[in-house]
Amino acid sequence: ATKMALRAGLRSKRGLTGVAVMRMQSPPVNSLNLELLTDICIALEKLEMDKSCRGLIITSNQPKVFSAGLDILEMYGKSPEHCGEFWKAVQEMWLKFYGSNLVTIAAINGSSPAGGCLMAMTCDYRIMADNPRYSIGLNETQLGIVAPFWFKDTLMNTVGHRTTEMALELGLLYSPAEALKIGMVDQLVPEDQVLTTATEAMTKWLAIPDHARQITKSMIRKPTIDKLMSNREDDVKNFVKFISKDSIQKSLGVYLEMLKKRKA
Amino acid sequence: ATKMALRAGLRSKRGLTGVAVMRMQSPPVNSLNLELLTDICIALEKLEMDKSCRGLIITSNQPKVFSAGLDILEMYGKSPEHCGEFWKAVQEMWLKFYGSNLVTIAAINGSSPAGGCLMAMTCDYRIMADNPRYSIGLNETQLGIVAPFWFKDTLMNTVGHRTTEMALELGLLYSPAEALKIGMVDQLVPEDQVLTTATEAMTKWLAIPDHARQITKSMIRKPTIDKLMSNREDDVKNFVKFISKDSIQKSLGVYLEMLKKRKA
Amino acid sequence: ATKMALRAGLRSKRGLTGVAVMRMQSPPVNSLNLELLTDICIALEKLEMDKSCRGLIITSNQPKVFSAGLDILEMYGKSPEHCGEFWKAVQEMWLKFYGSNLVTIAAINGSSPAGGCLMAMTCDYRIMADNPRYSIGLNETQLGIVAPFWFKDTLMNTVGHRTTEMALELGLLYSPAEALKIGMVDQLVPEDQVLTTATEAMTKWLAIPDHARQITKSMIRKPTIDKLMSNREDDVKNFVKFISKDSIQKSLGVYLEMLKKRKA
Repeated sequence: ATKMALRAGLRSKRGLTGVAVMRMQSPPVNSLNLELLTDICIALEKLEMDKSCRGLIITSNQPKVFSAGLDILEMYGKSPEHCGEFWKAVQEMWLKFYGSNLVTIAAINGSSPAGGCLMAMTCDYRIMADNPRYSIGLNETQLGIVAPFWFKDTLMNTVGHRTTEMALELGLLYSPAEALKIGMVDQLVPEDQVLTTATEAMTKWLAIPDHARQITKSMIRKPTIDKLMSNREDDVKNFVKFISKDSIQKSLGVYLEMLKKRKA
Repeated sequence: ATKMALRAGLRSKRGLTGVAVMRMQSPPVNSLNLELLTDICIALEKLEMDKSCRGLIITSNQPKVFSAGLDILEMYGKSPEHCGEFWKAVQEMWLKFYGSNLVTIAAINGSSPAGGCLMAMTCDYRIMADNPRYSIGLNETQLGIVAPFWFKDTLMNTVGHRTTEMALELGLLYSPAEALKIGMVDQLVPEDQVLTTATEAMTKWLAIPDHARQITKSMIRKPTIDKLMSNREDDVKNFVKFISKDSIQKSLGVYLEMLKKRKA
Repeated sequence: ATKMALRAGLRSKRGLTGVAVMRMQSPPVNSLNLELLTDICIALEKLEMDKSCRGLIITSNQPKVFSAGLDILEMYGKSPEHCGEFWKAVQEMWLKFYGSNLVTIAAINGSSPAGGCLMAMTCDYRIMADNPRYSIGLNETQLGIVAPFWFKDTLMNTVGHRTTEMALELGLLYSPAEALKIGMVDQLVPEDQVLTTATEAMTKWLAIPDHARQITKSMIRKPTIDKLMSNREDDVKNFVKFISKDSIQKSLGVYLEMLKKRKA
């Protein structure tokens, strides 16, 4: 399964060299489990060290979904140790993507709730399939759980304070048109043009000298990254304590049952 | 008069239980005097402790006005002690509303300048009567006085930095349509539907698990609340010192004269 | 040349007293060199101390351009001492304008890239000529250089976090229509009405009591100003170190060659 979880590689199609495309392929819905998160982080780390790589497009190889978000099975009925290890992997993914030196573009070719939305928001640019059946947003509150401060910071940096307040308190999922309107995504295109549009956008970003763009990106994102960096252990402890509560475990159980019924 | 100042009670109309409606009724324009502020705080405190209460709709029982804002008579020609006591009550109202565990919805059925706007902005959601003769905004500067930092923070959290700068420096009052456009209110409806729409919106908010919503709200609002909490006494001193100045007292006197003439 | 660099004086046209108009006149494109920056700072300082002066309109006496931004000749092939002195003058201009007690209105009657955009953004209000051939923005990244944190802060306070991220990482120049849409300017008018519209806007701003407006402006801008004030020397050192790099000097040389060719 590990080998199937992720396909990343440099492409040089259309003369666009130095651009990797990461295709998440963890059936059925690219749930971000420990394995997929680890694979993503290792792949990104390699790309960062590859001097020939300047940009990364992340997309999904699964139909109808970009990523369903954090895998609830990694936090339901698991030991505190496991939950803690899982949470560290989520932090690691966010830290690596939000602080990446590469130009990162999310080609959101399907629904992208919760952790899927977070991953998309860490990128420099977001292109979403204009299909009203897809949705995107940090809907944690609807499941009775709480997006931590760095999810909140990422959203606030993207859509502003008031929209974040409404979005997080109500756990809102937005249609592509709504997401464009509030600035959660930057561009909508027909589903079959998401990846080609991402490639075109990448060309524009790569026209900027890397060092100036990287220093600028770091200047803007560093304060947000530093907040988590200086609180990683407390953040893990808080997560483990919260997720281990009987009431929260029960909520997750109810939610998993609902998912099963929906499938059947 | 105390008994007339405020009508708060739980309602269960339409099967919507656990929702209190607070109707400000302090003729003629619901000026926020010490008495009304104290009544509001006591009523809110009781509701917070009432486990059967989950939401609060605040509205006006006076025609054409939600609240005219802070009562200038509480700061014109009064002793420093009185001004200080009054200001503590304003702080208390803001702290209680902005940090409330309840879902708070403002049903703004009339004009809402200055302190009236502040009160509305502390809520989770704002519905305003779509009547172009009504206005809303922090217009203190127009009277020669200055909205303190926590008024500014509340506005900034609602409409952003640049709009706040313009709004506060010019003391702008917005029509309902303008207020909707900048995000000072969330929804406009015909005047006779303000309260029913508030009830409908409340249903949506109450569909979210309380604990997740409350933790999320606190995470977002706590930094702003902490700024006042750690500066309450200085803020009172600043206010008393400022409002006691001859030039400011003179400005307030001119304004009160103008109000009298307008009535006549 | 010093005498030509700037024309500032009080005007009383239309009965609007107490308003100075500063006309930048440094051919061909009002590049902000050390001389012009110094002239501007001295002129502003005098106006601040002139009790009869309440407002300042800044505009260009050169055709098609408001200001082309910082003069690259002040940082190309110059000694570290000279670069440091130049950068202090840029800081001084920003500090004086962003913290000015006057009402400051930018009458942007031409293109306004980089430092020209910064200068416009320090003002209280921005009116731009609605000519699609003009552009405005902080495009430093396109030249391989980096806008420092206080340029970034000024932009963030004007257009918000996400728009700033895109604008600075891509070094975007906006058309007047785009600049209005993102809030980089406040109003567009036909080119021949820029100055008269600025005068009309000034009337609105001067209707507000000075002391209340000034305290409010300071409350909102002080945190941003304090960030530079407490880091001026480090900021100069960083600039000198960065601009002295061989790679950066080379970039500037390439850019200057391009400008020469464009002229020819």
